[in-house]
Amino acid sequence: MKRNIFSMSVTIKDLAKELNLSVATISKALKDSHEISPETKQRVFELAKKVNYTPNPYASSLRKRSSKTIAVVLPEVADSFFSLAINGIEKVARERGYHVLIYLTHESFDREEAILKEFQSGRVDGILISVSEETSSGNHIKKIIDEDVPVVFFDRISEDVNTATITTDDFESGYKATSHLIDQGCKKISFVKTSAGLSIINKRLEGYEKALEERKIKHSDADIIQCNDDPENNYQLIKKLLQKKNHPDGLIASVEKLTTPVYRACKELNLQIPGDIKLISFTNLQTASILNPSLTTIMQPAFEMGKIAATLLFKRIEKPNFDLTKEHVVIPSSLQVRESTG
Amino acid sequence: MKRNIFSMSVTIKDLAKELNLSVATISKALKDSHEISPETKQRVFELAKKVNYTPNPYASSLRKRSSKTIAVVLPEVADSFFSLAINGIEKVARERGYHVLIYLTHESFDREEAILKEFQSGRVDGILISVSEETSSGNHIKKIIDEDVPVVFFDRISEDVNTATITTDDFESGYKATSHLIDQGCKKISFVKTSAGLSIINKRLEGYEKALEERKIKHSDADIIQCNDDPENNYQLIKKLLQKKNHPDGLIASVEKLTTPVYRACKELNLQIPGDIKLISFTNLQTASILNPSLTTIMQPAFEMGKIAATLLFKRIEKPNFDLTKEHVVIPSSLQVRESTG
Repeated sequence: MKRNIFSMSVTIKDLAKELNLSVATISKALKDSHEISPETKQRVFELAKKVNYTPNPYASSLRKRSSKTIAVVLPEVADSFFSLAINGIEKVARERGYHVLIYLTHESFDREEAILKEFQSGRVDGILISVSEETSSGNHIKKIIDEDVPVVFFDRISEDVNTATITTDDFESGYKATSHLIDQGCKKISFVKTSAGLSIINKRLEGYEKALEERKIKHSDADIIQCNDDPENNYQLIKKLLQKKNHPDGLIASVEKLTTPVYRACKELNLQIPGDIKLISFTNLQTASILNPSLTTIMQPAFEMGKIAATLLFKRIEKPNFDLTKEHVVIPSSLQVRESTG
Repeated sequence: MKRNIFSMSVTIKDLAKELNLSVATISKALKDSHEISPETKQRVFELAKKVNYTPNPYASSLRKRSSKTIAVVLPEVADSFFSLAINGIEKVARERGYHVLIYLTHESFDREEAILKEFQSGRVDGILISVSEETSSGNHIKKIIDEDVPVVFFDRISEDVNTATITTDDFESGYKATSHLIDQGCKKISFVKTSAGLSIINKRLEGYEKALEERKIKHSDADIIQCNDDPENNYQLIKKLLQKKNHPDGLIASVEKLTTPVYRACKELNLQIPGDIKLISFTNLQTASILNPSLTTIMQPAFEMGKIAATLLFKRIEKPNFDLTKEHVVIPSSLQVRESTG
């Protein structure tokens, strides 16, 4: 029988399983890599021929290209940064006729790991990822890259993984936000953060500390408030901070979801923004300009970051030789001054 | 060779292609359905045996169950209703060890159709869908149901498809919103809508018209403003409406994304909310309470709707005999009165 109804279903993984070799080895053997012994290559070629698997250098990418699907792995969608970034990614994917699958980790490392494991079966041609708050090691991501699935980070990166990154200038943004509050007369500035592990938050914090030191404004660990994923807990922590006799006169909400609790706590405690306390948030909230009072923000170039991340990923999908490890794009965020720091 | 490395990859679709029959026919033949002729069944059984495809009544659902993945197809994520509904869906899926894939249509029927076509390959065990603004026929959805992939609608349904629906009381909500504005003294109330085709918007509009008629408040087609997907166009339309000498003294924004343009236009035109015009929006925006002024809303039970939709879908995935066509759940929305209608 010339036409084999199964040949279309044979994957590198099947070959690997049958020969008890790793997928990476099969992939390299099929590409005639010098890293693989002639004996192993011989075994791989023979099986590939037997099962109609075309042993040419582009076999892998050709097969995978046909899924015409990329994955976006991110913590949540109830955040204006991520929903705008998705739009940027989808714009690029649409132009190329690709589907975009969105996977949410809900800030859980276990879920992120389970999701990435799924991709080992080759269901997507490439991955865009912004890691969870809990992610401290990148081994689960390295494994996917080893299987020849390209990965590009956007916004939240894993520093021990060597691939393309699209980030914004978090250190400079933290510095800029803090300097603006000092310029507006603040003497005691709190930094409200989530997640101990996220590099973007730590960089914003470093920028904050640098600005305070340069301007010789005293600060201590008590000025840094550690929130978590529980909205009620965060509200209580912020309220407790603002109830202090010697409460801060400036506050930086380092992620969007901390904005509403600050407004709520101020209302509850009868504190005026910006009279009693000035506020600046890292957010792309569309409603920032119509809040009471309107909110000064650090706006990340979310749509643009999504677009560039997707463009790099497609470069690699289309040209397997394109080297993602050399691509590190930093796009500046912007300070949008409104009434809350007036 | 006893162990066949390909057997795991054979799908009903492969069988269908080889025999030049529809997937539905193969599926029914494998279930020994009386709708299929003995000759056809014979051909299907023979091929299935030859390729190690187990011909038992649960073969299809067992194979599909192993994907442990459901799809959520929706217009966008930059909307608080959808992001909350996703959280409800994921909560239920997580408890069952399932992955959730999110597909965005960006309100395009063509994209919705292309996405559903993807599912014909059996990549997901079930589908939760909220249709796009452009979707007027449900044939693309019927096709998937015919292939034995269960589908549940949430919020935006396609009325010609016979399956489970989880909706909210859109007519009553439109009626309630309008009655509230009349109670607050409004004499001329505009209804700002998107999409001519969406049943949920039309029901909200019917509720609006009913309330006006009951209270004998005159209205004409000019009070109904048709917006689209272009934020700038919507802003200009709303501004034009509010610039009129005889502008409305009450306004209903029937979808979330129309809220910010109304605030912006009022600010621009120096109209006071609620003094010059009272405003009520259909939205679950977390920032509704901290807007200037705080916003009266119709809040949809988004999280709950997602949870119930997913629960029904899993009932059907776990029990293929569970009849989705009998499930029609309506959960009421709630009116949250704040300053914008004060």
